[in-house]
Amino acid sequence: MSGAEIETLMRLLAKLPGLGPRSARRAALHLMKRKESLLAPLARALTEAEDAVRVCAVCGNLDTVDPCAICADVRRDEDMLCVVEDVADVWALERTALFRGRYHVLGGVLSALDGIGPEDLGLAKLVRRVESAKGGSEVILALGATVDGQTTAHVIADMLAHTDCMVSGLARGIPVGGELDYLDDGTLAAALNARRPVGT
Amino acid sequence: MSGAEIETLMRLLAKLPGLGPRSARRAALHLMKRKESLLAPLARALTEAEDAVRVCAVCGNLDTVDPCAICADVRRDEDMLCVVEDVADVWALERTALFRGRYHVLGGVLSALDGIGPEDLGLAKLVRRVESAKGGSEVILALGATVDGQTTAHVIADMLAHTDCMVSGLARGIPVGGELDYLDDGTLAAALNARRPVGT
Repeated sequence: MSGAEIETLMRLLAKLPGLGPRSARRAALHLMKRKESLLAPLARALTEAEDAVRVCAVCGNLDTVDPCAICADVRRDEDMLCVVEDVADVWALERTALFRGRYHVLGGVLSALDGIGPEDLGLAKLVRRVESAKGGSEVILALGATVDGQTTAHVIADMLAHTDCMVSGLARGIPVGGELDYLDDGTLAAALNARRPVGT
Repeated sequence: MSGAEIETLMRLLAKLPGLGPRSARRAALHLMKRKESLLAPLARALTEAEDAVRVCAVCGNLDTVDPCAICADVRRDEDMLCVVEDVADVWALERTALFRGRYHVLGGVLSALDGIGPEDLGLAKLVRRVESAKGGSEVILALGATVDGQTTAHVIADMLAHTDCMVSGLARGIPVGGELDYLDDGTLAAALNARRPVGT
């Protein structure tokens, strides 16, 4: 139907979440009709993101600096550590503008089905990070209210039981089965404010 | 929340059809996590499309060559001209693999509301193209079954009345109010097969 470059563009656009083959076709056409205003800027933005974006060695966040802007911000509370599954969850919590501590991105949750164990998530690294912090700190397990998310929260709470830090979880304002990145910001803010200790 | 390059990428992705601010955020994260397998190839594909894609001077189609592959294909019937609103409609008709003639892309339809008149669509150029063709040819007006689409079809049929070519329209297998690019390919193929003369 059209040149190889157009086919390639459509094939790659179809790999984006939320775009199927049909909407990728529309997106490709939309881009090609707006070469100056959209296609060229997007090409540049992707190339620049490719060069600039890196994983923060401290917390696992994605940013254009390493350590990331949150880890490098001296005004943020070092005694509060928020453990999340994904970078999208860091962004969601930052949008609430309620949490002024640090993050730890697991990159997933424990899952027997998908064969994801504690070593895949670097839980030992998390424990070392908490141990090296000063006493009286708090770890907030901001994980989804799914079976895997709550299992992961309990495993981490167990692993941190020997430290003198408080381990808390988000309040169950989260709808059952819900995932963090899909919540409206108000629910997420309420759940963060009403966080409670995880019983171990 | 993150570096300027990431913000720019999210802002541009949100301009694609089918992606809002939230899905653009997910798409950006999806890309940044797959730098090698998706982000870099997409950046290259966009840059290559920017260089390669051009508008066909003959029919208005988008392709990587000018004249486009359809106009340059000598096996295609020169006596059949299919008039469509948009490049997406050319692609939709090509997917039916039923039409072996040439196309003419208007780039829109007549619209009193949007102030789009015959000169904006280059209808005079279309008439000249039909006049310069040999006699006994057919013009298929493959325009949507909308008020504007059908108005445009009747205006074109009037402008071609003095030529000796047959002017036909797609059969009304098209659902009322439907737009060409949204039809399933079977309906479109049936409508193309059952095309009928436009009464003038």
